[in-house]
Amino acid sequence: MPRPLIALLTDFGLTDPYVGIMKGVMRGICPDADFVDISHGVRPQAVGQAAFLLATSHLHFPDGTIFLCVVDPGVGSDRAALALKTDRHLYVAPDNGLLSLVWRQAKARAAHMIVEQRYRLPEVSHTFHGRDIFAPAAAHLAAGVPIEALGPSVPDIEELSFASARREEPTCLRGEIVHIDHFGNLITNIRQSDLPRGVEASALQIQVADRAVQGLVTTYSAAGVGEPLAHIGSSGMLEIAVRRGHAAKHFGVDVGDAVRLRWPR
Amino acid sequence: MPRPLIALLTDFGLTDPYVGIMKGVMRGICPDADFVDISHGVRPQAVGQAAFLLATSHLHFPDGTIFLCVVDPGVGSDRAALALKTDRHLYVAPDNGLLSLVWRQAKARAAHMIVEQRYRLPEVSHTFHGRDIFAPAAAHLAAGVPIEALGPSVPDIEELSFASARREEPTCLRGEIVHIDHFGNLITNIRQSDLPRGVEASALQIQVADRAVQGLVTTYSAAGVGEPLAHIGSSGMLEIAVRRGHAAKHFGVDVGDAVRLRWPR
Amino acid sequence: MPRPLIALLTDFGLTDPYVGIMKGVMRGICPDADFVDISHGVRPQAVGQAAFLLATSHLHFPDGTIFLCVVDPGVGSDRAALALKTDRHLYVAPDNGLLSLVWRQAKARAAHMIVEQRYRLPEVSHTFHGRDIFAPAAAHLAAGVPIEALGPSVPDIEELSFASARREEPTCLRGEIVHIDHFGNLITNIRQSDLPRGVEASALQIQVADRAVQGLVTTYSAAGVGEPLAHIGSSGMLEIAVRRGHAAKHFGVDVGDAVRLRWPR
Repeated sequence: MPRPLIALLTDFGLTDPYVGIMKGVMRGICPDADFVDISHGVRPQAVGQAAFLLATSHLHFPDGTIFLCVVDPGVGSDRAALALKTDRHLYVAPDNGLLSLVWRQAKARAAHMIVEQRYRLPEVSHTFHGRDIFAPAAAHLAAGVPIEALGPSVPDIEELSFASARREEPTCLRGEIVHIDHFGNLITNIRQSDLPRGVEASALQIQVADRAVQGLVTTYSAAGVGEPLAHIGSSGMLEIAVRRGHAAKHFGVDVGDAVRLRWPR
Repeated sequence: MPRPLIALLTDFGLTDPYVGIMKGVMRGICPDADFVDISHGVRPQAVGQAAFLLATSHLHFPDGTIFLCVVDPGVGSDRAALALKTDRHLYVAPDNGLLSLVWRQAKARAAHMIVEQRYRLPEVSHTFHGRDIFAPAAAHLAAGVPIEALGPSVPDIEELSFASARREEPTCLRGEIVHIDHFGNLITNIRQSDLPRGVEASALQIQVADRAVQGLVTTYSAAGVGEPLAHIGSSGMLEIAVRRGHAAKHFGVDVGDAVRLRWPR
Repeated sequence: MPRPLIALLTDFGLTDPYVGIMKGVMRGICPDADFVDISHGVRPQAVGQAAFLLATSHLHFPDGTIFLCVVDPGVGSDRAALALKTDRHLYVAPDNGLLSLVWRQAKARAAHMIVEQRYRLPEVSHTFHGRDIFAPAAAHLAAGVPIEALGPSVPDIEELSFASARREEPTCLRGEIVHIDHFGNLITNIRQSDLPRGVEASALQIQVADRAVQGLVTTYSAAGVGEPLAHIGSSGMLEIAVRRGHAAKHFGVDVGDAVRLRWPR
C-alpha cells in the first residue's frame, strides 16, 4: 500500500510556521501521510488565483491524492467548509469558489460540508481554520474516513465568476492575464480551444499592452534572445514569454491586463 | 510503526542548499526519517524570533517528534550544543536561548550536551554545525539512540530575556510586537491571561503607534474591509489585524514597537 | 528497504506549482518515492550556479539518491536529456553543463541519453520538460528501471567553462565570487588547494572591491561584530563574511566580481 498523499495549496507563505503546524496536526491524525506542496505563494486571499493554480496542477497527481487548499478571506464568517470527491481525487477547502474549476471539470463528483465535531480539533479558533478544521479533515480522509462521515451532502458549491475570453470583434478575441509565473511568463485565460479554426498559427497576432507579437510558435527557441513570443503553454493556455527574459517587465503588465488575439478575415 | 518525524526550524532561507544538505545527512543516518519544515525564514540570527515560533508550533506536532532548530550566531564559539527531552518531544539546538520557552513550558524535561564524536560527522567545520553536529544528532535520535548517549546531562540551559508585557499604570498594560506574519498581522507578547479580569472585551482599548482600536473581537469579519481589529490570535496572544489588509503597513510599525492595552477604572 | 530518495534542484521558484506538479508526476510513477529539495531558488536559467550548488551538496546525500536537476534555458531546442550514474548516485538533467562538475569529480561514471518514449509522459510539451521528461525519468530510476533502459550511452557530456582562479602575479591569485548566500556571505572559486604552500594563514591578504581583509581565520567569532573576515567555508572554498552582518552589502559586490588573494614573497 502506498502512503496516502496530501497536496497543499495556500496563501500562507513559507516564513510563518502555519504550513508546518498544519502538517504536524495531520501527522498526529494520520502518521502515515506524505505531503507535497503545490504552492504557499498564492497572493494573500486571492481565491481566483488559487482556483487557477489548482486546476492546472491536480490532474498530474496520482489517483487518491487529497488536496488541502486554504485561501480563506472569509474565515470566521458563515462560509461553509467543504470536502469534495471526484472520480480521481479528494479535496478540502473553504466553500468560496476555490474548488469551482475542479468541480466543473469533474466527471463524477460529490460535495459534503465538514461539520462533524469529532473530525475537527477539540478547540476551533476563529482565525485559523486551516489548522483546526481543514487539515484535520484532510488527515482523517487520508486515514480512511469516508467523505460522507464529515457531514451532509450538498448539491452545489460556490462558483467563482472568472473572466472568460470574449469575442470583441469578428476577428478579435479579448482575454486577460490571469497569472504571471516566476520567470515572468504571462499566462492568459485564452484556451487552445478558443483559437479560430482554419487560421494559420503564423497569421495570429497577439496584442499585449500596445505592442503586437506576430504568430504562435511552439518553442522558446523560435525567438531570438530577448525577443517576445506567444505559444500555448504547458497548462494549455495562451502564454506570452520573452526568450531568456521576463515578459511581465518587458511589457510592463500585471494580472488583469488585457491580451487581444487578432486574425485576418 | 510510523516513521520518525523531524521538524526543522532555521534562519537558512530556501535559496541556498543548506537545508537540503542537512536532510541528506539525516537520511544517510536514519533512512526512515520524514521531514516537516516549520520555517527557514527566521530573520538571520534572530534567536528570539525562533524561540517564539517554536513555542507557538511544537504542541501541534505528534508525540515523539524531533525538533531540529538552528539559528546560531555563535557558531564556532564555545556555546554548547544541546539536546532536550520533554514528556512529549525531543529538541536539538545550540544552547543560546532558542529552547528556553520550550524549557519553561515543559512538565518533565532533561537537557544533555552533544559531545560524543561518534554522533557527529567525522569532520566538523567551524561554520556549519547544522550539517556537522545538529542534523546528525537529530538523525541519531530518530534512529533510536537515547539522548543520554549524546553527552552529559546539564541542569540548566541558556535563558533568553524576553520582554514581557508590564503594568505601566493601574489601567494600562504595555507590551510589544514580537512577530509580524506573512499577512501583516501584528503578534504581541500580551497573552490572553494578561487581560484584566471582569472587564468587557468591548471596553478594552488597544493602542498601536498613536492610534487606538476599540474592543477585542473574535473574528476578522467583525471589522469592515480595510478596518483594523484586535483579537486573541490562534497562538493565544493579542494580535492586531486589518481585515483583508496588512496591519504592519497600515500602522507603519515593526517588531519591537510598543502596543498598549488600556481599560476603564 | 529504505524508500528511494529523489533530491530536486531547479530555478522554478516556489510560487508557481511547477515543483509540486513534478512531484505529483513522480508519485504516480513511483508511489514509494521520497523528496528532498536542495533549492528551487537558482537564478532563472543560471546553469553555472546550479552546477556549483549541486557540486557542493551531492556528496552529503546517501548512496542511491537520485538528483533531478532542471535549469533549462534550451528547453525545446535540440539539447539532449541526460541521465548519469556514478559510483554513488544517479542524476537526471538537461545536457547543458549542469552536471559537468559532478561528472569531473566522479570516480566511476556512465552517461545515457533519455530517449525511450515509454519513460516519458505520453504527451511531451515544448516548454516543460521537467514535468514531461526529467521527472518521469527520475521516478522510473527510483522505481528500479536501469539507466541503460532510458537510452543509448554517450561518451561525454556538455562541459561548462567555469572561471577558474588564476595566478595574476607571482604572489597574487585572481578569483571571483560564484555565489552569494542567504546570509550575504561571498563564496569564491578559490579552493583550499589553491592557497600558496608554506605561507601562514595570517599573512594572506584578501582583496574584495578595493578593500583588504588580512589573514584567514577559522571561525566567525575571530572577528568583531560588523567586521569582515575571510575563511575556508563549509564547501571548501574561500569565503568572505561579515560577523553578524551581510558581506555582499558591506562590500557592495555581486556574483562575478573579482576577489584577489595576495601573499608576501
